[in-house]
Amino acid sequence: MQQELQSIWADPRRPRIYIIDQRFLPHRLVIETITSVEAMARAIREMRLRGAPLIGVAAAYGYYLACLHAERRGLDRKYLDEAARLLASTRPTAVNLARALKRQQQAVAGTVAAERSARAYACARNLEAEEIDCCRRIGQHGLTLIEGIHRQRPPTGPVNILTHCNAGWLACVRHGTATAPIYAAHERGIKVHVWVDETRPRNQGARLTAWELARAGVPHTVITDNSGGHLMQHGRVDLVLVGSDRTTRTGDVANKIGTYLKALAARDNGIPFYAALPASTIDWELSDGVREIPIEERSAEEVRRVRGLAGRRIREVLVPPRESPAANHAFDVTPARLVTGLITERGICPADEQSLRRLFPENSPAADNQSTP
Amino acid sequence: MQQELQSIWADPRRPRIYIIDQRFLPHRLVIETITSVEAMARAIREMRLRGAPLIGVAAAYGYYLACLHAERRGLDRKYLDEAARLLASTRPTAVNLARALKRQQQAVAGTVAAERSARAYACARNLEAEEIDCCRRIGQHGLTLIEGIHRQRPPTGPVNILTHCNAGWLACVRHGTATAPIYAAHERGIKVHVWVDETRPRNQGARLTAWELARAGVPHTVITDNSGGHLMQHGRVDLVLVGSDRTTRTGDVANKIGTYLKALAARDNGIPFYAALPASTIDWELSDGVREIPIEERSAEEVRRVRGLAGRRIREVLVPPRESPAANHAFDVTPARLVTGLITERGICPADEQSLRRLFPENSPAADNQSTP
Repeated sequence: MQQELQSIWADPRRPRIYIIDQRFLPHRLVIETITSVEAMARAIREMRLRGAPLIGVAAAYGYYLACLHAERRGLDRKYLDEAARLLASTRPTAVNLARALKRQQQAVAGTVAAERSARAYACARNLEAEEIDCCRRIGQHGLTLIEGIHRQRPPTGPVNILTHCNAGWLACVRHGTATAPIYAAHERGIKVHVWVDETRPRNQGARLTAWELARAGVPHTVITDNSGGHLMQHGRVDLVLVGSDRTTRTGDVANKIGTYLKALAARDNGIPFYAALPASTIDWELSDGVREIPIEERSAEEVRRVRGLAGRRIREVLVPPRESPAANHAFDVTPARLVTGLITERGICPADEQSLRRLFPENSPAADNQSTP
Repeated sequence: MQQELQSIWADPRRPRIYIIDQRFLPHRLVIETITSVEAMARAIREMRLRGAPLIGVAAAYGYYLACLHAERRGLDRKYLDEAARLLASTRPTAVNLARALKRQQQAVAGTVAAERSARAYACARNLEAEEIDCCRRIGQHGLTLIEGIHRQRPPTGPVNILTHCNAGWLACVRHGTATAPIYAAHERGIKVHVWVDETRPRNQGARLTAWELARAGVPHTVITDNSGGHLMQHGRVDLVLVGSDRTTRTGDVANKIGTYLKALAARDNGIPFYAALPASTIDWELSDGVREIPIEERSAEEVRRVRGLAGRRIREVLVPPRESPAANHAFDVTPARLVTGLITERGICPADEQSLRRLFPENSPAADNQSTP
């Protein structure tokens, strides 16, 4: 079963994309078949799937479905532009989404109408393969950090890693970003134990990361988002590993709301704090994450209501008084000064512009100028 | 109705103590009648009532009920010592509980059996009155901070205060500690707006503080515990006000888990962070809160399950996978270096030993020595 390993996959024979509808996890594994760009846009907007790399791949497949539809109905480029706008509007913070769409638009540019869907399909498949490879490499680079801590520890105890939200394979395509080093260490027989922040309001940690880790047999403990500071004060966290939804060229990390608080606690207790990210999440245009990255505000009901299993049914319960309003900022920005390092597909580097440019020289200002038309 | 104002009250004519069973708030107001020490111990242990000052008063009334029972059944001092042990075992972190019991034991010491319950009743009533007066004074002192911020603001905007957990009248007897300055400012016509941390795992913020504020007509917004850092980064918090379950003589503050993270964020953003506390929460024996204060670990099910309203019923839903374990540390310690000041019934002071001793000279080492037998 491909869904054992991947969060999205295409049927090679038919125009069908399969996704895991993550809203029902961990209590039910629901596979959804997507056959139109509208359905893909809805899946992204309603967070049936989420996670920066996965959103990019999903948008690419969505664009492919739009090309296919245009081809069959003889629709023009205007339709494809509309489809791209629809997909782009689903999640404003995710830079991968915009980039995947740009890549698709370039892939089909200048091709005859009849070839567009084949080109878009190939482009989406390539993006998928690249994301998988990216995560695999992130896992290998991040593994060296865990090995380093493991070597310094008494051999009886596990390496304790705290993670926030879900930067696992459910957020990517395979392996995950923040989880990739954890899986790599576990496979290599290094004892690890993961503190899983539940990650309110949507509980992606408690629901998704815990589910992934349980399936992989990785020892873990679910904690409230409030707990990490206390655990760090008492030496019970060796490493903080998180993902990134958007990274500035200066190393600021926009990730799930609450990440910044964990970075502060890590700094206060001398614990290494790393963000694992494919370079596709780096926005080379941005230098000040706190000022420049727009933070998505989502429905207050996500804060007011909690979803879970009641008996055999999945239900929602209302926690605060009916009349109390709530606010739901989805992300926050961790300034680079609090980030020990960035784990990318090309290696680990300090969170600063010079180091990032050294790893990714093709994004230097000169290279930028050349690629600008 | 007394329950409009108080979280615990005694029937002056009959041996009955009334409490609000806070487990059903905000969706249902349940008043419980307590007539035995065992019922009071259960109420404290099961957190039908919670909050440091309230627990002290409840334990005092519990001891009174034990005295009454002993008197009626002709039981000896051994029974009363058992009762005190029972009450003391319910919540290990709360210093008020131990102190209230000590005071009761002193109140009945050397009295004939027939007078004990009357003495214990008077002692509990005094403690109740003192807690109310304490909170009122804390409110007046804390009000000066809010007035100070209000004067510096453009008159159109409210003073934005972030609070964690419930340090309101539900946690005390009346007024609350952290909420007392807020209520005082609201009554004086100063525009305030409160960011209410939901306070996982038991959601005392979303359930109790939001309920209190809604009843009092104080504008407020419920947020996840993850949100405060982001709001502070963007200038949307003017003041952090929290309570304290136990304070060291050096100014370290043990409060609901997650308080430490908010203190770190306040420091990082230059926002004043104050703990409001009656002197009864100060443990003059302790100098290093992180090392010395034992942190209560509660049931993992409190993390795994969330209680709320589903339709018209109060239900619990399970969030993580059935097989995923959880940990539930109830408190953390905010080191004094992160605390801008302590708001006590005698005034506001910096969070350090010298300042605390100046406000409470009766607890100086010399005074301590004299009171030690």
